[in-house]
Amino acid sequence: MRLLDTINQPKDIRALSIDQLTELAGEIRQLLIDTVAVHGGHLAPNLGTVELILAMHCVFDTPTDKLVFDVGHQAYTHKILTGRRQTFHTLRDFGGISGFPNRKESPHDAFGAGHASTAISAALGLARARSFLGQSHHVVALVGDGALGGGMSYEAMNDAGSKTEGKTIDTPFIVILNDNEMSIARNVGALSKHLTRLRSSERWRGTKRVIHGGLVRVPVVGKRLVAWVKSFKNDLKNFLVGGEFFESLGFYYLGPVDGHDLPMLIRVLEEAKGIDDVPVLIHAVTQKGRGYARAERKPENFHGVAPFLVENGKARYTSQVPSFGAVAAEALVRLAQQDERVVAITAAMRLGTGLLPFETAFPKRCFDVGIAEQHAVTLAAGMAAGGMRPYFAVYSTFLQRGYDQVLHDMCLQGLPVCLLVDRAGLVGDDGPTHHGVFDIAFLRHIPGLSIFAPRDTQELAAMMDHTLRLDEPCAIRYARDGADMSATHPYGNFEPGVWEVLASPADAQVAQVALLAFGHMVRVALDGAELLAARGIRAQVINASTIKPLDQKMLADLAARCVLIVTLEEHALLGGFGEAVAGFCVANGQPAPIAMLGIQDDYVPHGAVNRLLELCGLTAEGVALRVEEALKKHG
Amino acid sequence: MRLLDTINQPKDIRALSIDQLTELAGEIRQLLIDTVAVHGGHLAPNLGTVELILAMHCVFDTPTDKLVFDVGHQAYTHKILTGRRQTFHTLRDFGGISGFPNRKESPHDAFGAGHASTAISAALGLARARSFLGQSHHVVALVGDGALGGGMSYEAMNDAGSKTEGKTIDTPFIVILNDNEMSIARNVGALSKHLTRLRSSERWRGTKRVIHGGLVRVPVVGKRLVAWVKSFKNDLKNFLVGGEFFESLGFYYLGPVDGHDLPMLIRVLEEAKGIDDVPVLIHAVTQKGRGYARAERKPENFHGVAPFLVENGKARYTSQVPSFGAVAAEALVRLAQQDERVVAITAAMRLGTGLLPFETAFPKRCFDVGIAEQHAVTLAAGMAAGGMRPYFAVYSTFLQRGYDQVLHDMCLQGLPVCLLVDRAGLVGDDGPTHHGVFDIAFLRHIPGLSIFAPRDTQELAAMMDHTLRLDEPCAIRYARDGADMSATHPYGNFEPGVWEVLASPADAQVAQVALLAFGHMVRVALDGAELLAARGIRAQVINASTIKPLDQKMLADLAARCVLIVTLEEHALLGGFGEAVAGFCVANGQPAPIAMLGIQDDYVPHGAVNRLLELCGLTAEGVALRVEEALKKHG
Repeated sequence: MRLLDTINQPKDIRALSIDQLTELAGEIRQLLIDTVAVHGGHLAPNLGTVELILAMHCVFDTPTDKLVFDVGHQAYTHKILTGRRQTFHTLRDFGGISGFPNRKESPHDAFGAGHASTAISAALGLARARSFLGQSHHVVALVGDGALGGGMSYEAMNDAGSKTEGKTIDTPFIVILNDNEMSIARNVGALSKHLTRLRSSERWRGTKRVIHGGLVRVPVVGKRLVAWVKSFKNDLKNFLVGGEFFESLGFYYLGPVDGHDLPMLIRVLEEAKGIDDVPVLIHAVTQKGRGYARAERKPENFHGVAPFLVENGKARYTSQVPSFGAVAAEALVRLAQQDERVVAITAAMRLGTGLLPFETAFPKRCFDVGIAEQHAVTLAAGMAAGGMRPYFAVYSTFLQRGYDQVLHDMCLQGLPVCLLVDRAGLVGDDGPTHHGVFDIAFLRHIPGLSIFAPRDTQELAAMMDHTLRLDEPCAIRYARDGADMSATHPYGNFEPGVWEVLASPADAQVAQVALLAFGHMVRVALDGAELLAARGIRAQVINASTIKPLDQKMLADLAARCVLIVTLEEHALLGGFGEAVAGFCVANGQPAPIAMLGIQDDYVPHGAVNRLLELCGLTAEGVALRVEEALKKHG
Repeated sequence: MRLLDTINQPKDIRALSIDQLTELAGEIRQLLIDTVAVHGGHLAPNLGTVELILAMHCVFDTPTDKLVFDVGHQAYTHKILTGRRQTFHTLRDFGGISGFPNRKESPHDAFGAGHASTAISAALGLARARSFLGQSHHVVALVGDGALGGGMSYEAMNDAGSKTEGKTIDTPFIVILNDNEMSIARNVGALSKHLTRLRSSERWRGTKRVIHGGLVRVPVVGKRLVAWVKSFKNDLKNFLVGGEFFESLGFYYLGPVDGHDLPMLIRVLEEAKGIDDVPVLIHAVTQKGRGYARAERKPENFHGVAPFLVENGKARYTSQVPSFGAVAAEALVRLAQQDERVVAITAAMRLGTGLLPFETAFPKRCFDVGIAEQHAVTLAAGMAAGGMRPYFAVYSTFLQRGYDQVLHDMCLQGLPVCLLVDRAGLVGDDGPTHHGVFDIAFLRHIPGLSIFAPRDTQELAAMMDHTLRLDEPCAIRYARDGADMSATHPYGNFEPGVWEVLASPADAQVAQVALLAFGHMVRVALDGAELLAARGIRAQVINASTIKPLDQKMLADLAARCVLIVTLEEHALLGGFGEAVAGFCVANGQPAPIAMLGIQDDYVPHGAVNRLLELCGLTAEGVALRVEEALKKHG
């Protein structure tokens, strides 16, 4: 029997010896590898934090004490230890365990996460609430060095470390910096250099001696004593007063410590627990991917993974069609060859956004700014103001961080930045913190911004070429998985604001229904139209690949023919494309009936994309049903 | 004749002696005071930066060299020096000079601004573009110490200070930290303590000696020489290697220097200009409000001001009705007395949001986190998760910075934070960077968030009471100026999701039109209805003070009666309330005709609010005209 099978609640691990804890860490790693290999998920970050989280649960008592996980992609061990071992095999399945902390899933999850750099703010809030309400539990935030580069982390530290006379309520809490020298990719930024200096061997070795040696083993012979005390003092000083960056922000800095050394971690956490007047930062150094050789060698490749084969690290399923991101990067290489003004920007997502080939081709024209979407947008705007043509490749959900900057710095000034909005639509297993289902709603009302969404990789390539001719802000949104319709629907020219009629009944004039779709929904619309045809209903399928501006001419034509207009979007209904169409038709007094298919006003859970699309009625059958209903209603 | 009258372009000042520059500074201050006293605007920040900006224009050559102003509320002197002296009297008037830098206004304005903390990102972008395109001009960002607390500044410094082997393109540029120990209010946060330490007298005096003394006046006598050299070395070291915070981010730190000492500033800027391998940070210490005694004493009160009388500093025009913010704060005091869980949060806007009385009553329950809206929202969410009931008072336009956090940290988790969204609607003179005309569009699609907008201060008070009963996320949006309709329309009970019929024809069943409005537009709708009545058109006026959820029952009733539904909003049409109503009616197949009044898909310029409302057709006459048109169209 595994030791792990005896752990049903966190307190069970407190009875274990260090040797047993070490054994347990090994068992947890095996469970992590086996589970992620089948379900996909965040592997390398979780492998790197097993001992850290074991130590946290040895020293702190959840759910009374509050543990906050930044991003939350390193919380699997926490889940396993807090009553979710037996359901862990449902990781990221529909209805199963979430890949991120979730307040609704367990009282041990003190604060949900998904995006980077929120943990210090949330922990400070929890700590202040604790102090206000006269409680005395501990609050601990675990933050990666990548997330520390996000501006919010700094805003929170700046607030946490401030003391305003006569006003302050003591809010000690602990930040554990999980320094694995990586964010998702290799870390960038000046701060990472600072951390490297802190990890410098002298300090590092000194720390080890202080912690392991302590004051008990003082040697007793003359000169050696003096030398030892002298060296010990230096070690102690290094240990206590390093980290000028953190100290300038009012934190008490402890570290660096070896994040895989359980006795050391427990000791340092106990020490931090005793500090009750200032916030504490513990600098722990860990190895991302630890315990799975392939992930140790290439942690970036095993950060967030699809199901893979443990024996060789290869993906279980591969796609024949290149991803949209890969096609965008390929186009970008082409554009950069033509035009020296073209540069690419990513916020720690070179791999995820597919930019790597671009970086290889043009290393000096690819900027990874770290997890810093706000800065990325305004940097792009600044470069555009200086005469360049920047492309910012970013996930839809992370662009939420740059909303104000898109509105003010990019669009108000009309600067020609192109946003490559990847992972638009439902992303599946990562769930509500990662679905890209709000970007149209938060971009569409921004004056001067064009928004495009290609039906397949042919159209994306055409759009990319167009962006260079367009001397204005624009965004192209697309899903991760590419689509290729060239066999049945070869692509012509891309003309912004002009929608493409993809399928029509023999006589377009007799169509009863027009299905307006974009992105992956075009395929769904085509299949839906076939189902409808079999049921005697004549439907047109229109690729509305310019989301803004609308093709007003085509809408007017449809309205004039009084066909039922059906909009179809893998996006929230509120603020989405359907409302745009409805708003336009209403404003122009056009009488055509309209039905809007999309995501209802609620968060979509995690699970396989197809399962989620079914849930939202965004399938061929769902479309056919809604059309039949609407036709009945409108006669 | 004033010296100032001879300055038509920046190079004109380079011919002046230091004495003349000092005289010019005095003249500029007088112009600033006289102009802002009449037009309103940012007084104290501009008075504090006169010498800094004179020095910048002495050393740098715009528009070739690029000057970027953070927030931009300190750029008046720059405007006066760069060809806008003679039009400066139109400051903030409709069609006149903008209160912020604006690329469309002058080639000397290298990058627009309005929100804090963007300048370092923009300057880095301009510097990188410069280096890419083989140009050699200088790029300088002027950033206040308050704006430095915003996360974006840190993200940008972290990126600027990074060097990645083999990839870096040299992008030297200069950041001038304008340290006036204030953001808008007294500065908060740990970093401000760090700056205070840097300003400590020893370093400060040393710097002065280094700069003024230089190496030329070395004393020649024995011991004194040694002592002097020793002290000079210390001074030099202090001067060159202080600022560990900035150095840990890869910046070369120079300072602190006296930001009113012209020769010193010019000398330091020249030195910085010569550094061509790393970014430089110059730490200049200035006095906010300098040259106007009242502003020197109370700089917070003279940060952004309405027109005032120079002789006593009092506002030229006063309102009888308390502001919405003041009423919200008053209600908050009442709630806090009832409930110990109530706390207030502001992001450097205690005065602007009216929170001051709350802070006076409950100093420990009022948190000013500095210019850090992202952190503010998640801090609030954290406090709510810990059992508190936080209210975050924030301007509509600045909440744009916290969009992702409202979506993820607050609403996805269903945490009971209340957003007090001040300055909603058109703000007038501050213009497009400050109008609060997008909040409904960026909040309405967030699942689980209720959105309210009171017609007057009576309703706001009732709403505030309601928020404490509501155990969910919510937002209340309101303008700066309060309204009080108690004389004609005493307020009853607030019930969320239930709209109030404020005015009806004698027989409501014969109404032809229903005007749906909220906030200040309710008054406009009432006046519009009177105009319509005089023209024989019977209109109902409905106070749609719950923007989300919609009052579906009332909408169904209106549709059933087939009256013309007219929505009226001081907000963008795209994504706004009108589209919400249209979307709902369309989705439910309701046949009522709808007309939507609001702001077209463009940025609204600066100018008096009434002038802008006219421009947007949001007046009683505008409503009446549109209703007549729509009735004609729909028969």
